[in-house]
Amino acid sequence: MPEPARPDWSGRLQTLRETCRQLGVDTLVVSTPLNVKYLTGFAGSAGLLLASPSDVQLLVDGRYTGAVAAAIAAGEVANMAVAKVENRVDSSLGALLRAGNASRVGFEAAHVTVATLTSWQIAASGIQWQPTERLVERQRAVKDAQELAVLRRAAQSLSNVARALPSLVSRGRTEHEVARAIDLALEMAGFSEPAFPTIVASGPNSAHPHAHPSDRRLAGGDLVVLDFGGVLDGYCVDLTRMAAIGQVSPEARALFAAVQEAQTAAISTVRAGVTGAAVDAAARRVLEARGLAEAFLHSTGHGLGLEVHEAPRLSSERSGPAELLEAGMVCTIEPGAYLEGFAGVRLEDDVLVTPEGSEVLTDAPRDLLVV
Amino acid sequence: MPEPARPDWSGRLQTLRETCRQLGVDTLVVSTPLNVKYLTGFAGSAGLLLASPSDVQLLVDGRYTGAVAAAIAAGEVANMAVAKVENRVDSSLGALLRAGNASRVGFEAAHVTVATLTSWQIAASGIQWQPTERLVERQRAVKDAQELAVLRRAAQSLSNVARALPSLVSRGRTEHEVARAIDLALEMAGFSEPAFPTIVASGPNSAHPHAHPSDRRLAGGDLVVLDFGGVLDGYCVDLTRMAAIGQVSPEARALFAAVQEAQTAAISTVRAGVTGAAVDAAARRVLEARGLAEAFLHSTGHGLGLEVHEAPRLSSERSGPAELLEAGMVCTIEPGAYLEGFAGVRLEDDVLVTPEGSEVLTDAPRDLLVV
Repeated sequence: MPEPARPDWSGRLQTLRETCRQLGVDTLVVSTPLNVKYLTGFAGSAGLLLASPSDVQLLVDGRYTGAVAAAIAAGEVANMAVAKVENRVDSSLGALLRAGNASRVGFEAAHVTVATLTSWQIAASGIQWQPTERLVERQRAVKDAQELAVLRRAAQSLSNVARALPSLVSRGRTEHEVARAIDLALEMAGFSEPAFPTIVASGPNSAHPHAHPSDRRLAGGDLVVLDFGGVLDGYCVDLTRMAAIGQVSPEARALFAAVQEAQTAAISTVRAGVTGAAVDAAARRVLEARGLAEAFLHSTGHGLGLEVHEAPRLSSERSGPAELLEAGMVCTIEPGAYLEGFAGVRLEDDVLVTPEGSEVLTDAPRDLLVV
Repeated sequence: MPEPARPDWSGRLQTLRETCRQLGVDTLVVSTPLNVKYLTGFAGSAGLLLASPSDVQLLVDGRYTGAVAAAIAAGEVANMAVAKVENRVDSSLGALLRAGNASRVGFEAAHVTVATLTSWQIAASGIQWQPTERLVERQRAVKDAQELAVLRRAAQSLSNVARALPSLVSRGRTEHEVARAIDLALEMAGFSEPAFPTIVASGPNSAHPHAHPSDRRLAGGDLVVLDFGGVLDGYCVDLTRMAAIGQVSPEARALFAAVQEAQTAAISTVRAGVTGAAVDAAARRVLEARGLAEAFLHSTGHGLGLEVHEAPRLSSERSGPAELLEAGMVCTIEPGAYLEGFAGVRLEDDVLVTPEGSEVLTDAPRDLLVV
């Protein structure tokens, strides 16, 4: 099947309208920019989407109205009514809500500040404001066909960059130099930008999961964490591979083998209907059995999409309510083990959750890359 | 006087504690990352500063406690008590507030989301939460000696980049190429990054105040807007100069002369005690007298500091309450005139407000640069 040309905004808006109906709100005000972009394609820095069970409209300021009309005509933005801010956003929002006879209005409590809600309450008195939590984010967690097509392409391109690592990583280069080489490879692979600052952490630095590249030169005996990602057509992918500079110690090899086995165990646990915590536990059990329980300093994975960290979380039960994996979610599986003063190992791939299990989207070799 | 080595965190915190006293709050919770950085030097992505009339403490999660202690010992962060998040931020905040017997607690309403405030209210019941607006931002608007030293150096470096424009701008180069050359010059001048995406807008594109560089090649008769800025030691400066490619029309020269005169008028109006609106009006009057009232599409200026757009605003009275200029504020003065389909002109310098008037910190030639 050819890749769908456009995101399915009408399907996404239809789902959102159904959510409004279930919540019993007359209108849901979507203010989080990435949520507005996901639902409509509109990517301006300021825009409010007003969704009701029967209707959607976008409220934007005068800088954008012309561009939005042109984008709608060109099919680059969802076909919807566009209202223009007159003077102030809050008063214009109030006027639209009054015109629609809205009485119960949902808003995104994780995005709207107290000051903003106060101004809305003043501008639209008599309305009952209903906080909502992560409605669109939950919708975004399950990818549709167009998103999966982009993510598959992105994962393929990222795997190509990973396959080029042997020519980028070499003894004597600094972590900075290797990171720059990876960034250039990402650009040449078609990514619009790195999904996050590329991590190259060698020798003892590899024991720090969020290390920044330094001027340390890669030296014989080092393990090297190479963690990088890219943004393609707005979607993020993320991958980690391990290199060894020449011969590494048996302890380093054992650390690598433990993490590799933990990753395999976690991936084989992924399936629609299991919790993220169950996948995390599978990785953690393997590391625990090798005395590395305390060395696994982060969660096993996170969702990928318009953001590099989004729903679902794959982490231990202690850190929050259980999140159920659903078919169509795309997430990283990235266990690690870090021994301060010695070295650290992480392996990361991107998987699609399916009804029967998972499909690993990143297909570059997972072996220790000896250079 | 040699440049002060460190920001005056203790003075800034002293001022904030005085603000708490005046507001009658037991504690003010500062959550906006740049405000926390300004007050303490702590630049982590998650930290809450609790300021009371007698005390300050920083609440950070376990990833940061070691680094913060080391930074305090090294004098790189304000000397203050550091509390560690146990499990959840909201419950740890609640415990600290209870331990301090706080009953009336201020928070930053423009930063705290409704969801966050709700979680704080649940974690610390019995507390009266008092919304505050832009307390630290108002404090930040008036620069202290260390900030002025950085901004002076930054404005000097930016002026050096502006003086190099004749070698960067030439007929036949694309807007993109010129923008990249300016970005490289910014890097060589010591800026850690551009303060915003560099604008190079030529010919008809110059009529759009926020144009993105395109692949259009600079051609004879073009006016070219060159608007760029840099970040030095965390502080932003911002400058616009105009180039002409060879001979330009008398109309283009007249447009340039009008904006230049408007800028001169605005700068000569700046003084502690006048409003930003008065400065804006001075620029607007000059353009109105030349029939260009409708061509001036934005405000006359904005404050500069840790953000490239911060208080004060220098804009017409219609767009908000009057903001009084105070000695020590640093802001841009950047009138412009834009004629769709023809060309646009903007000139921008950075000025320090003084008791008697102003000091222009950017000193590169303001004439039309003919190349």
